Amino acid sequence: METGKIDFIPGGTVTSPEGFFAGATYAGIKKTEDSLDLGILFSEAPCVTAGLFTSSKIKSAPVKLCQERLKEGRAVAVVVNSGCANAYTGERGLADAAEMAALTAERMGVSSGDVLVASTGVTGRRLPMELIKAGIEQIILSRDGGHELAKAIMTTDTVPKETAVAVKTGGGEFTIGGVAKGSGMIHPNLATMFCFLTTDARVELDFLKSALRKAADVSFNMISIDGDTSPSDTVLLMANGQAGNEPITAGSQGADTFQQALDQICIYLAKALARDGEGATKLIEVTVGGAKSVAEARLAARAVVSSTLVKTAVHGGDPNWGRVIMALGNSGVEIAESKIDLYIGDVGVLKGGRVLPFNEESVVRAFNQSEVTINLHLNLGKASATAWGCDLSEEYVTINSEYTT
Amino acid sequence: METGKIDFIPGGTVTSPEGFFAGATYAGIKKTEDSLDLGILFSEAPCVTAGLFTSSKIKSAPVKLCQERLKEGRAVAVVVNSGCANAYTGERGLADAAEMAALTAERMGVSSGDVLVASTGVTGRRLPMELIKAGIEQIILSRDGGHELAKAIMTTDTVPKETAVAVKTGGGEFTIGGVAKGSGMIHPNLATMFCFLTTDARVELDFLKSALRKAADVSFNMISIDGDTSPSDTVLLMANGQAGNEPITAGSQGADTFQQALDQICIYLAKALARDGEGATKLIEVTVGGAKSVAEARLAARAVVSSTLVKTAVHGGDPNWGRVIMALGNSGVEIAESKIDLYIGDVGVLKGGRVLPFNEESVVRAFNQSEVTINLHLNLGKASATAWGCDLSEEYVTINSEYTT
Repeated sequence: METGKIDFIPGGTVTSPEGFFAGATYAGIKKTEDSLDLGILFSEAPCVTAGLFTSSKIKSAPVKLCQERLKEGRAVAVVVNSGCANAYTGERGLADAAEMAALTAERMGVSSGDVLVASTGVTGRRLPMELIKAGIEQIILSRDGGHELAKAIMTTDTVPKETAVAVKTGGGEFTIGGVAKGSGMIHPNLATMFCFLTTDARVELDFLKSALRKAADVSFNMISIDGDTSPSDTVLLMANGQAGNEPITAGSQGADTFQQALDQICIYLAKALARDGEGATKLIEVTVGGAKSVAEARLAARAVVSSTLVKTAVHGGDPNWGRVIMALGNSGVEIAESKIDLYIGDVGVLKGGRVLPFNEESVVRAFNQSEVTINLHLNLGKASATAWGCDLSEEYVTINSEYTT
Repeated sequence: METGKIDFIPGGTVTSPEGFFAGATYAGIKKTEDSLDLGILFSEAPCVTAGLFTSSKIKSAPVKLCQERLKEGRAVAVVVNSGCANAYTGERGLADAAEMAALTAERMGVSSGDVLVASTGVTGRRLPMELIKAGIEQIILSRDGGHELAKAIMTTDTVPKETAVAVKTGGGEFTIGGVAKGSGMIHPNLATMFCFLTTDARVELDFLKSALRKAADVSFNMISIDGDTSPSDTVLLMANGQAGNEPITAGSQGADTFQQALDQICIYLAKALARDGEGATKLIEVTVGGAKSVAEARLAARAVVSSTLVKTAVHGGDPNWGRVIMALGNSGVEIAESKIDLYIGDVGVLKGGRVLPFNEESVVRAFNQSEVTINLHLNLGKASATAWGCDLSEEYVTINSEYTT
């Protein structure tokens, strides 16, 4: 394994990498006037670009547009809005997404085919194209506009999510930045979330695609808020090569470090999404070790972190550890009751399937931390996986009972 | 199709069929003193008996005992308790379940191997055997004890669930009764629920098993409260033959009518479970038609009724119909966006994938009924299925945050 150096950049954003610009405005799509709802991310040089999209059979118009345009793995800009998802809007929705890209291309002076689109918000409503047109004309791009973009993509998110890392390898130095939104409908396999990742590294397309998929598998595909998936989920990774490093390809110098840095930034953003789930008051981290395969470990960790009963028990600080075992039992993975170890925080609850003489109050305390860790060891194999989620609160219900009204 | 007659019996219970007795007591297992927590269901003649159990890999001790004892398809009594599930209790739990059966057999003067056991409540705690022993000695059985049994199996249920039907066929008359509990953790494929069904019909074992599975597939396997499954789920069907009808076997006179009656009673109880889901204020009925196969229709109907976002939208009367489409898209079933029809209550929302000019207020009204119906037509085939669930309320979270404490 090569030795690179990866450092998180204080205040890092999606425009931390060289050559990236962003800006945002309030176009009037959202109801709340003192917010941002339309933004552009732009690279001064064309980007090798990879994307991952919703697994839903219902895909929003922007997702369809991106999937088509990314066939050649190239983009220079992304225009994004919150407040309206442009999903389930038929042919007119596709035309609206294409027009949104064309308006952006015109303003930036680039080819329309190089502009990607992402929209989040209510499903089944058309975009207010007049507002979007006027908004695009108002946006001012700047090198430090990443934070504005982070705010413009928020829906029920309570905080913007963004970061960047500085990476040093034998093949040169580069930066990776990222911005994400989530909040509700976050579930394994990309539920309603956006993540736009940028890097000034020079990276070959096939490696970039593979690296993004691997990073998503240990991050965005391992978080769950409420088990639902949106038609709009979009993860993009744009590499503009401005750092001048030796090109990164599979097996090249810097490839491992690039993957590690990308994994770290994606896990950072994924945890931020889970922590800010709708109504969430706690981050839950579930690690399953000793599984027969990584697939089984992943399945089990996600099952526990997704369980409504685990989420409510954590919310209320209820030391009902049986729910963790129940969720494990329902996951479908192979288990032997007499082999399971369970820790909640640092409290040993089960050892070899036997209940340890632990203090219930100590489990209550572990559940009342802002970050709750649950560790299961199946003692059947060597594979492990970690998943993240959040507690389920009364406020989640309140938020989702009133969304459009 | 034969023509039989099926009538629901006002005030019908699990002891409505001839030869069945029940009784219950407060043994002290639950914390609430003015409740019942231990009961016995007994038949004066041995019963041909079929059972269905949890799909979880973690099975409670009583489930393991029942599965073993039902290999020969015979039982005369069931002893049940609420307050403690005797799950994840290892070898001592199995011994406790066996002792609970033996104590009941002794009191009833029957063979211990003919007694089944069902326990519901907290996982990972041992049964208080002294209380159970004293309780079993106190129970008085009677022909009208069915209602007491219905109360004794309740946990967070707010109302007892029970009914019975009188059936007339060319081969004779008989009665089927049933009692159920559920409330939380109700999900397709038998989540935490009990249902004890009795009949005085003479029924051959293989047919009884097949009929029970078919009935569960259109009822208990089509309801969802919160997506979790307990280690304790138990459905039993006991037939004692006291009605003296011609024996019912596959294809015999009365077989179709028996199946229909069993389906009806199971659907009645399943809907009662969904309506009384923890914190539920509304029953949601989702029918998916025009699917390519029954399996796809079932999958789609269950996906919509299980969606947290659909459940919260219905709870709040939020006319955000896009969530129904989103849940359908995530179900994995084959769909064509341009073919979908959607009705909420009697309001047409989509026709051939196009949004109809409906009044949002009328959807709000439909969502504010105590029974909310959602009809989807995929227009791809001829198969259909119906699933039931309930809304997700703030109270659900409150109940489940405080369960053991």
